Amino acid sequence: MTTRLVVTLGYDGSGFAGWARQPHLPTVQGALESALQVIDPSIGPVTCAGRTDAGVHARGQVVHVDVPARLWESRGPQRLLAQLNRLTDERIHVHSVAEAPTGFDARFSALSRTYSYRLCDDPAGWDPLFRGWVTMHRRPLDTSLMAVAAEELVGEHDFAAFCRPREGASTIRRIVRTDVHRDGGRRVVVTLEADAFCHSMVRSVVGALAAIGEGRRDPAWMVQLLTAARRDSRVMVMPPHGLVLESVRYPSDDLVGERAVLTRNFRGRSAES
Amino acid sequence: MTTRLVVTLGYDGSGFAGWARQPHLPTVQGALESALQVIDPSIGPVTCAGRTDAGVHARGQVVHVDVPARLWESRGPQRLLAQLNRLTDERIHVHSVAEAPTGFDARFSALSRTYSYRLCDDPAGWDPLFRGWVTMHRRPLDTSLMAVAAEELVGEHDFAAFCRPREGASTIRRIVRTDVHRDGGRRVVVTLEADAFCHSMVRSVVGALAAIGEGRRDPAWMVQLLTAARRDSRVMVMPPHGLVLESVRYPSDDLVGERAVLTRNFRGRSAES
Repeated sequence: MTTRLVVTLGYDGSGFAGWARQPHLPTVQGALESALQVIDPSIGPVTCAGRTDAGVHARGQVVHVDVPARLWESRGPQRLLAQLNRLTDERIHVHSVAEAPTGFDARFSALSRTYSYRLCDDPAGWDPLFRGWVTMHRRPLDTSLMAVAAEELVGEHDFAAFCRPREGASTIRRIVRTDVHRDGGRRVVVTLEADAFCHSMVRSVVGALAAIGEGRRDPAWMVQLLTAARRDSRVMVMPPHGLVLESVRYPSDDLVGERAVLTRNFRGRSAES
Repeated sequence: MTTRLVVTLGYDGSGFAGWARQPHLPTVQGALESALQVIDPSIGPVTCAGRTDAGVHARGQVVHVDVPARLWESRGPQRLLAQLNRLTDERIHVHSVAEAPTGFDARFSALSRTYSYRLCDDPAGWDPLFRGWVTMHRRPLDTSLMAVAAEELVGEHDFAAFCRPREGASTIRRIVRTDVHRDGGRRVVVTLEADAFCHSMVRSVVGALAAIGEGRRDPAWMVQLLTAARRDSRVMVMPPHGLVLESVRYPSDDLVGERAVLTRNFRGRSAES
């Protein structure tokens, strides 16, 4: 008998070869699964909502994992949480552990993922304390131009221009919200919320937005890229360390099971999230 | 013929044995002086406004340095700035280089230094991305109690209770401003502005404030500590990595020389800053 748990965590992606377990490489999934297996060797793999790339961070990653029911009953959330934080290194912090609602799947129950990307376009305002999660951008950015272009992304589109192509995988995604603003004057924060993201999609979108913000491209370029719907080498992929998986949105507890079934059936594609 | 330059910089103090040059140890002063000596071997020592301890960071450190007049005339601020940033590692960022006003002394012309200290008192909100400059605090803090206690510090007092004693050095300082607030709900930021600070003073004051914020001590304890005016072992010295030298305030250019003379004469004490 197992109990499904939902675990939320944040991590500094520096030095990790991304979320997904890989042999002989440090990964977040690997670190979390190793910690769980110290607690109970019978605990199996964990499934996450957003498979972050190498060097990408998370503040609100969500995972599910099935653990022996007796373990959950005997330890409870507080002890398990403390154990997980003791067993993972300082780059990972588990925020919460709870019993998952019936039918919950961290990946397939999710309604949307929200990612943010941070750039500093003012060399005089560069803060070495933030260098692990802010990208230095040498040219000044016009955030109002970027916001106009970002607005064009909202809705269902083929994001092939921004995605690393994968055999048989769709590149159609629905962006539900975009935001571009300055944080404390010196940092530009780009936020994107979508049902799911393809591989390298946020970093490519931010690359296109940066070209528009610099004035090298017109905001209308964004529409052209979407319409062309094929990989465009003029779109720069921004470095991973500016990117953070901020949060994952789920339906109410009584609908997570239904949502998981729906998503699983709908995506013949092997969606990157 | 030399020209006095004023250089502003920020740094991640992690891995540095503090500001002040020490043989065989990595220090910020050592790194900056080494970079300057690569540019011109005749450049002498630099003088800073706030001699930060090992592991303490800075956003607005100010230094002065005398360089050959011909070097300044031939390079100018932009080239010198770029060179300094190339020659120092990623933990240091030089924000600006300019000719200093007549009589300027980074240490003695300063009117005040502002330090901030950051604590996270919500384990569920702990962000591994911020672990280099935020201290984890296991118990919840009441910032209104802390603010009341901090207010007691304003004015000229003997801060002996908070200072590591030094032979023949005064522990009298004038605090001009205190602030305690929550930043994004989860981080408590304590800000202190004073003419100067003794060694470990901010970290000890924050230690006392944390005890008050936890409810282990009454805000009136702060007054008792000030009145007693002697080192108190019950005051915890907080770890260095939560501390940042935020800024240094100077009088207008025409008064910096006068201020330097005044401070130099006034302090028979060898003031830590």
